[in-house]
Amino acid sequence: MAIRVLIWNEGRHEKQNPKVAEIYPNGMHGAIAAHLRKSNEFTVSTSSLDDPEQGCSEKGINDTDVLLWWGHMYHDDVADAADSGHFSKIFRRLMGTTCNLKWREAAEREILWVTRPGHPIVKGIDDHFVIPTEEMYGEYFDIPEPMETVLISSFAGGEVFRSGITFTRGAGRIFYFRPGHEMYPTYHDRNVLKIVENATRWAAPAWPAKPVTFVNRKMGWV
Amino acid sequence: MAIRVLIWNEGRHEKQNPKVAEIYPNGMHGAIAAHLRKSNEFTVSTSSLDDPEQGCSEKGINDTDVLLWWGHMYHDDVADAADSGHFSKIFRRLMGTTCNLKWREAAEREILWVTRPGHPIVKGIDDHFVIPTEEMYGEYFDIPEPMETVLISSFAGGEVFRSGITFTRGAGRIFYFRPGHEMYPTYHDRNVLKIVENATRWAAPAWPAKPVTFVNRKMGWV
Amino acid sequence: MAIRVLIWNEGRHEKQNPKVAEIYPNGMHGAIAAHLRKSNEFTVSTSSLDDPEQGCSEKGINDTDVLLWWGHMYHDDVADAADSGHFSKIFRRLMGTTCNLKWREAAEREILWVTRPGHPIVKGIDDHFVIPTEEMYGEYFDIPEPMETVLISSFAGGEVFRSGITFTRGAGRIFYFRPGHEMYPTYHDRNVLKIVENATRWAAPAWPAKPVTFVNRKMGWV
Amino acid sequence: MAIRVLIWNEGRHEKQNPKVAEIYPNGMHGAIAAHLRKSNEFTVSTSSLDDPEQGCSEKGINDTDVLLWWGHMYHDDVADAADSGHFSKIFRRLMGTTCNLKWREAAEREILWVTRPGHPIVKGIDDHFVIPTEEMYGEYFDIPEPMETVLISSFAGGEVFRSGITFTRGAGRIFYFRPGHEMYPTYHDRNVLKIVENATRWAAPAWPAKPVTFVNRKMGWV
Repeated sequence: MAIRVLIWNEGRHEKQNPKVAEIYPNGMHGAIAAHLRKSNEFTVSTSSLDDPEQGCSEKGINDTDVLLWWGHMYHDDVADAADSGHFSKIFRRLMGTTCNLKWREAAEREILWVTRPGHPIVKGIDDHFVIPTEEMYGEYFDIPEPMETVLISSFAGGEVFRSGITFTRGAGRIFYFRPGHEMYPTYHDRNVLKIVENATRWAAPAWPAKPVTFVNRKMGWV
Repeated sequence: MAIRVLIWNEGRHEKQNPKVAEIYPNGMHGAIAAHLRKSNEFTVSTSSLDDPEQGCSEKGINDTDVLLWWGHMYHDDVADAADSGHFSKIFRRLMGTTCNLKWREAAEREILWVTRPGHPIVKGIDDHFVIPTEEMYGEYFDIPEPMETVLISSFAGGEVFRSGITFTRGAGRIFYFRPGHEMYPTYHDRNVLKIVENATRWAAPAWPAKPVTFVNRKMGWV
Repeated sequence: MAIRVLIWNEGRHEKQNPKVAEIYPNGMHGAIAAHLRKSNEFTVSTSSLDDPEQGCSEKGINDTDVLLWWGHMYHDDVADAADSGHFSKIFRRLMGTTCNLKWREAAEREILWVTRPGHPIVKGIDDHFVIPTEEMYGEYFDIPEPMETVLISSFAGGEVFRSGITFTRGAGRIFYFRPGHEMYPTYHDRNVLKIVENATRWAAPAWPAKPVTFVNRKMGWV
Repeated sequence: MAIRVLIWNEGRHEKQNPKVAEIYPNGMHGAIAAHLRKSNEFTVSTSSLDDPEQGCSEKGINDTDVLLWWGHMYHDDVADAADSGHFSKIFRRLMGTTCNLKWREAAEREILWVTRPGHPIVKGIDDHFVIPTEEMYGEYFDIPEPMETVLISSFAGGEVFRSGITFTRGAGRIFYFRPGHEMYPTYHDRNVLKIVENATRWAAPAWPAKPVTFVNRKMGWV
């Protein structure tokens, strides 16, 4: 059965800024969706902030196996039920931390180094890859210790960042992936798209586990 | 300089139930406070739900190095700013999970096994200890993978529980410790008090680190 | 392409002890192999200590995706190149610890609790299962902190044990699974066989990553 | 009681190379020892490869709380009982991995970023510090997932490295710290010395835990 993917994007930058629209005529979610749709492993939907229920209806979420979330400027516009990227309400809620970081928009070179070779998320990726033009994110990144650190970036300006990290919460798997800015063609990058695709596969539920029942247990059950 | 400890307790059980008052005439917080006050390493305060600002004023928290939290029945009465025990708002917020579990009140035997010998939190504790009469908490305990698993319990009824576990969030250290129920004299137990004391020392800030500045960094800084 | 599985067993108990031979006429490796061979996902080989090169030739290992290792009494007979179970040379080498533990052979009840619901290794397993007759292994189990704790056992005698735990080393995945003794029919247990099967699938390489090249890197490469 | 520190160094570079002797007239171990001896918290000894029993007698080790190990070129000269740095026999044995990495000697700038603010090991260290002239170590660094990642480096050439990481093994604490080369004055750097000092304090045993007894346990003990 196909993995049901919902790609959520604020979806405003490309409407408001012609330069963004030029790079991403169908939005960043559109670029990612187009890539994932090449494989019949995925059933891909997209939604955005200005959709009904902010693109995050309960039914929509229930019918989703993997949620890809992209947010940048409008976190505060998202109701408590939803929102993301490093500052998204959904990610901060799952981490229990501020998820804050240092940053710079200077269209600089980012090099991403693989720190967990053989991991499913870096399938087909070399020991490193370069994104010529990116926003800088720098440590300290206020997150809990990751379960796995899969990618670490260096930036031309000298900063470093844990750019690909995994966590589990309950039966769910979380992958945080740093790259991507509305003004740079990051989501057309072969390596970036490949990692998003790999991570989607990796985050899909391994099996349809039924919810845990947290009951009052009686003595003598065994 | 002494470690400033604030012991927060709902503080209602002992007022409402004569049996609890008999076991803990000064409340469970009183029993713990009395133990910690034997050492001049600690400056101990206590507060409870029915105190002004629910015993959690901003000033009170700012003047606290280590917060001990005990809650059971009144989590929902605690304003969003505060609350704990496994279901406390503060713990769930830091974990990013429901912190739910299985349970049974049958006054049964709990055996706690040390799974990280030599850890500062189990200083002076043997390889295991027994609490003759306790409430049962059973797995699955819905928490993220701990940084360290220091204690695991078995119960007479056959269940197991990760009873002593550590996490970090930002510069803070978190220790979750399972034992303790208002109807059982757990907080008079020598091993339990010793672990609470050890954990208070362990959780105290290692040094007065100044808050991280999450700034927009300029190119050419290095 | 099928996952190439090599099941290694000391292979002596069933030859020396008629009671073991009665429970496992084809050895414990035979019981596991028979189960895995029901699926065409696996290509299964078996070998044992008294085979040429102790059943661990370099070619044999190179042609293996997942190695299942069972050892009990003859760890010291295994050359440095090979050996396992909790005391196997191969496991101790990968952990960097003694892997020692407490134990008792009293044919007692073991209950295994799932502590990571939804994990691929416990696919199809309920929140717990019972093995009526087993050897006891008790904490402290001298291992590094696991990446994931998937199963914790309680024993009738009151001990606990981290019975299903995962680690990564390089591109490899390691699952330690406690149950199994030559005198008990553990490897005929439906849940045990299912977990061994799931773990085999989980430990299989995600993709044929080429070995990392640890080179002297020249300046100006980027 | 003072923390008993043993600083082991190959101790050959400074004898063989006048340039090294100029930077470290008493060896690198001498520079570190001189710093630690400023505090009466430590009792400091030093030893080296050409000392009796290679500077690692059983008695010497038994009388040591914290072992600082520096090795570079002569790992293979160290008997199996001893040896270190990233390639030291002792570190590889504890990690269970090759501990291999990429490298370059180009006297380049290293920037170390703190990724666990408030940690005892970075007490008094700013959010980053710069070493103007260092050897490069680059990822992939073949180690298990660290318990804590405290420092990550970027190098002028674009590489990154997990330069300050912690592990536990049994009751012991391990800190791997990257910087230091015999041709650069790294061990005269204020930040480097401070981190070595902090880490020595951090790695000291929390209490004199007696060794775990891994016994055959009898039924009916409880």
